[in-house]
Amino acid sequence: MHMIRAAVAGASGYAGGELLRLLLAHPDVEIGTVSAGGNAGTRLGELQPHLLPLADRVLAETTVENLAGHDVVFLALPHGHSAEIAAQLGEDVLVVDCGADHRLADADDWEKWYGGPHSPNWPYGLPELPGGRDALRGTRRVAVPGCYPTVSSLALAPALVAGLVEREVVITAVSGTSGAGKSPKPHLLGSEVMGSLSVYGVGGAHRHTPEIAQNLSHATGGPVAVSFTPVLAPLPRGILASCSAALAADVDPAGAADAARAVYEKAYADEPFVHLLPVGQWPTTGAVLGSNAVTLQVAVDVAARRLVVAAVVDNLAKGTAGAAVQCMNIALGLPETAGLPLTGVAP
Amino acid sequence: MHMIRAAVAGASGYAGGELLRLLLAHPDVEIGTVSAGGNAGTRLGELQPHLLPLADRVLAETTVENLAGHDVVFLALPHGHSAEIAAQLGEDVLVVDCGADHRLADADDWEKWYGGPHSPNWPYGLPELPGGRDALRGTRRVAVPGCYPTVSSLALAPALVAGLVEREVVITAVSGTSGAGKSPKPHLLGSEVMGSLSVYGVGGAHRHTPEIAQNLSHATGGPVAVSFTPVLAPLPRGILASCSAALAADVDPAGAADAARAVYEKAYADEPFVHLLPVGQWPTTGAVLGSNAVTLQVAVDVAARRLVVAAVVDNLAKGTAGAAVQCMNIALGLPETAGLPLTGVAP
Amino acid sequence: MHMIRAAVAGASGYAGGELLRLLLAHPDVEIGTVSAGGNAGTRLGELQPHLLPLADRVLAETTVENLAGHDVVFLALPHGHSAEIAAQLGEDVLVVDCGADHRLADADDWEKWYGGPHSPNWPYGLPELPGGRDALRGTRRVAVPGCYPTVSSLALAPALVAGLVEREVVITAVSGTSGAGKSPKPHLLGSEVMGSLSVYGVGGAHRHTPEIAQNLSHATGGPVAVSFTPVLAPLPRGILASCSAALAADVDPAGAADAARAVYEKAYADEPFVHLLPVGQWPTTGAVLGSNAVTLQVAVDVAARRLVVAAVVDNLAKGTAGAAVQCMNIALGLPETAGLPLTGVAP
Amino acid sequence: MHMIRAAVAGASGYAGGELLRLLLAHPDVEIGTVSAGGNAGTRLGELQPHLLPLADRVLAETTVENLAGHDVVFLALPHGHSAEIAAQLGEDVLVVDCGADHRLADADDWEKWYGGPHSPNWPYGLPELPGGRDALRGTRRVAVPGCYPTVSSLALAPALVAGLVEREVVITAVSGTSGAGKSPKPHLLGSEVMGSLSVYGVGGAHRHTPEIAQNLSHATGGPVAVSFTPVLAPLPRGILASCSAALAADVDPAGAADAARAVYEKAYADEPFVHLLPVGQWPTTGAVLGSNAVTLQVAVDVAARRLVVAAVVDNLAKGTAGAAVQCMNIALGLPETAGLPLTGVAP
Repeated sequence: MHMIRAAVAGASGYAGGELLRLLLAHPDVEIGTVSAGGNAGTRLGELQPHLLPLADRVLAETTVENLAGHDVVFLALPHGHSAEIAAQLGEDVLVVDCGADHRLADADDWEKWYGGPHSPNWPYGLPELPGGRDALRGTRRVAVPGCYPTVSSLALAPALVAGLVEREVVITAVSGTSGAGKSPKPHLLGSEVMGSLSVYGVGGAHRHTPEIAQNLSHATGGPVAVSFTPVLAPLPRGILASCSAALAADVDPAGAADAARAVYEKAYADEPFVHLLPVGQWPTTGAVLGSNAVTLQVAVDVAARRLVVAAVVDNLAKGTAGAAVQCMNIALGLPETAGLPLTGVAP
Repeated sequence: MHMIRAAVAGASGYAGGELLRLLLAHPDVEIGTVSAGGNAGTRLGELQPHLLPLADRVLAETTVENLAGHDVVFLALPHGHSAEIAAQLGEDVLVVDCGADHRLADADDWEKWYGGPHSPNWPYGLPELPGGRDALRGTRRVAVPGCYPTVSSLALAPALVAGLVEREVVITAVSGTSGAGKSPKPHLLGSEVMGSLSVYGVGGAHRHTPEIAQNLSHATGGPVAVSFTPVLAPLPRGILASCSAALAADVDPAGAADAARAVYEKAYADEPFVHLLPVGQWPTTGAVLGSNAVTLQVAVDVAARRLVVAAVVDNLAKGTAGAAVQCMNIALGLPETAGLPLTGVAP
Repeated sequence: MHMIRAAVAGASGYAGGELLRLLLAHPDVEIGTVSAGGNAGTRLGELQPHLLPLADRVLAETTVENLAGHDVVFLALPHGHSAEIAAQLGEDVLVVDCGADHRLADADDWEKWYGGPHSPNWPYGLPELPGGRDALRGTRRVAVPGCYPTVSSLALAPALVAGLVEREVVITAVSGTSGAGKSPKPHLLGSEVMGSLSVYGVGGAHRHTPEIAQNLSHATGGPVAVSFTPVLAPLPRGILASCSAALAADVDPAGAADAARAVYEKAYADEPFVHLLPVGQWPTTGAVLGSNAVTLQVAVDVAARRLVVAAVVDNLAKGTAGAAVQCMNIALGLPETAGLPLTGVAP
Repeated sequence: MHMIRAAVAGASGYAGGELLRLLLAHPDVEIGTVSAGGNAGTRLGELQPHLLPLADRVLAETTVENLAGHDVVFLALPHGHSAEIAAQLGEDVLVVDCGADHRLADADDWEKWYGGPHSPNWPYGLPELPGGRDALRGTRRVAVPGCYPTVSSLALAPALVAGLVEREVVITAVSGTSGAGKSPKPHLLGSEVMGSLSVYGVGGAHRHTPEIAQNLSHATGGPVAVSFTPVLAPLPRGILASCSAALAADVDPAGAADAARAVYEKAYADEPFVHLLPVGQWPTTGAVLGSNAVTLQVAVDVAARRLVVAAVVDNLAKGTAGAAVQCMNIALGLPETAGLPLTGVAP
């Protein structure tokens, strides 16, 4: 087949860099335009020194002209920028948006959490959710999920769908710092984050909360209350989500562990990237560093009558850029796993 | 006044080292015997190079003979070792046990979580809990709390006591590695923990769970269900606990934030070491590194109808050795804050 | 062509894990036996959870029987174990030894630095040294270099060969912890290494010193004095070597920077994995994490009359396992870069 | 005695925060004005949350008016700002400058390395150098040394003074990130520094080079050539300096180790803060975290004929703020160790 020509807008940031890292290893893709905003004109090697094969590429400006003429355009831009660009790229071009603009279906949610005019939502790039894969086949627009919603939704959807737990979930997700981006802010300095844990967006104030609620509600056909607390930890990459919910009233706690295991085994039996770990093994983010895998484990706290699911993801890989490539594969009819590592880089 | 003569058993470990660091700065204490098990006979400077003023001390063996003749004996030993030693030290000696042996009041709990014969519980070293301080005045036996129970109990007790929340709490606590001790195990290697987050003791399997439940139940006079999940993060010291509970049925979510703030302000108004942060400021473990402070913040998630409390502690300081010194101060009638830093070492 | 069948002995350690990670991505290799010593019988997924595609493999015991019948056998064993195994594997099997046993040509050096009987040295697996590649073509025995010697030798050889500097070099190399292996020791605990820098093997006491001296002396045809100091830093992977030597007496400091640049450009112009960075850009280990690249930069300190070369390597990749695969490629006549990433995983 | 009233200008930065941490524990000091530039008007608790006892202080603007009326004024300002302020504070006020403005005696050096008009140098705040303490007694102006010069000069001066080594020294110093300050820059982001080592100022380009040369030349009465290479490592605090020099021609390598040990033992025998470690023990920065100590160790590489000295310092404590307080103590006739921790915070 002919090579798919891909452009990456926002190539100087972390999501853009990870997209290029993955696309470099993709057997069916050749990398066309790499563009940026303020960093246009700079050698990529200066900003992304790990992308040695692209070191001499010079960043173009992010304009419709520079992005035109590709089979697929990946957008890794601040929110609010993708709708206008996408509109001008033409309907036959696959546009994969790593930003938030096209994730939320509800205009009120958008208004409340992001503000500004609401763009219609695009097919949502989490194929492992019920019905998720079908919505992506052949599409020319993809909204890549947020990193926290990816891992949280995959951790909780099967139990909710199966009716194992009540529709009120509690999530504390611990994240590395790259999710906060490359724009320098004092609280993201190495001196501040190393040796320290901090918490933010507490009390349901993080923008990923409505996205998680949307995913879980959509999967189960009814409202799900989400309590979400993000924690920042001293590592560059990786999210570990500690998720729980009360067992449904009609579930016997004594048998719930086996039931939960069966539910998750079935839900992800055929998924190439989502893995229920063997009994006794717990997920670590280090094991999925650089990989497109999500690993998870389930437990039942009989005394507290709660199901607890722990799940990990590399926020830049399956949490952003890996999902973007996976969705491109599905949308274009390529093998879904093409170019996507299942092996982490450890230690 | 005469100087208080203190012995530290288990001086080659992390808790023992932190005890010595704090005691070196205590104006009323002189350090007598420092002892160890397998490390007896070694220069302390080799094992605890940060304790320069004690570098030439040689570790004695942990025996009753070596620990006798002190006003206070701090025990930082593996569990199961303190009862026998304490019995032989005499009732007039203050014995402060940093281990778990004398924390649990319920023999069945002990049997289930630790195994072996149950020792009677001692006055519990968390003065900031309701009634906690009174139980410590004049005592000659103190059970220092576990690090997770300290921060979790302080985070949740006021809301439970005030009836703001339901008696089912969910805690995910992220911890540095020093809580796991100095005994080398593969999963605690720097290569394994740096750059990775892991989860353990999931589903109510961690031994600190019954201790948290005991504290909260005792404070509120009735059973409290505790779902507790610990996460290991790449930093040496510090715990950040993300705690939440559903608002009580009769609490109006709209006014709950103010109500919660008032409750916590009142609960800790006179506490020297527990600080409710100003509105808008969230706790970070880095700010309490090396200090005896606990800082916390409260929020209400109106949509999810939950109170969320985030709290931090240095697991070795207020989480273990600082609490031990604080309890010694109370037990012996010294100023409670003597020798205890309120200032963290940051960045 | 038919797939090359590879065995990895020592598959539960860090070098073994990295070999498997790279071999999984190698287009011409299929992975046969994976073996271990004490960990034989264990699921690989338990010990190397990042190798998801091999999670269900069970480690065989490291015996000649289990390793027989492969085209290539990689040995990642404690030193002293490879000679006997290699002898029994047959001369037609490619044996790539990641240990030290066959690196040193001089029996006295071996005796002094390692002790025990000296095995004859094998072709040395650093193709980028003068004459290095030729020695590897068609060989059936390869001694993979140590991690420090790899980066130090590549940093200094061109200047020495060109006569730019005196034959006395000073190297301080800062390393992550994985080079020290997976065997748990107190000073390698996360609690010890995070937030701390330490130094070891000072004064020429590190075993890699004679290997560096051998490489540089061999390249230049005469003795080179090596002062080598390793520093341990809080990161899992990566070595940054700060290398310097006095400018030769006949070199004009004013023109030395240009001369040095020309020498290094020429030395590595055709090398796929060794890259002289553009003027003004300095190497960082993060940029080569997981990749087989070495990047370096040169400077002349006119006032001190010294050439300074800074170079970085991933100690597990090009520093060990990547070099092993690269040498396999050369020995078997495969494309030298097959299966070897040139792109790092950052941030 | 009456309390000494101290002001700190630049209190929102890392050096300013460390000054306040130390002054809070000083028995003879009360903290007056705390001031800042752009952060004036902000609660200190927001910017330096670890300084709990000062949390409600509001930062004043850094003006002469606000700094007047104190016994001692600590300046932690960007370079170029201290001369004018000091001139207006009066000659009877002790001004301790943590910046570079008054460190260099040579106007040409200043012009070359910093640019702008040269201010006369002030008594240099490294009392442990030959003659250093005398110059500080009773002074009302102190130039606090740079962090790298402190540890490098203490590591090398004794050997140079004793004539053990040639007057050409090579230093590679590995540092945590706090030395680069709190002003956010992309390369100092946590995502960039964690898991990575980088090098900068290579080839004699770092501004601390002439300061080290000045110290060593002054101590020995003749020029010393300094090759200095700084490396940035993933930890907030601490510098480890790997320093070496060729043994002098008339020194017998066989006896040099004992000779060197004797020289350093004598040089630092009476120093409260500089400690030669026992034979066999090597310095780690973790052991001096938060303390005012410098620990060092010496070795002789007989084969390479070089003396190697490794030394560590906390760059913010003895490397900046601790030295400032120590110099205040000397200048004002207080006990030199007052308020200065000798104990590190580990692990």
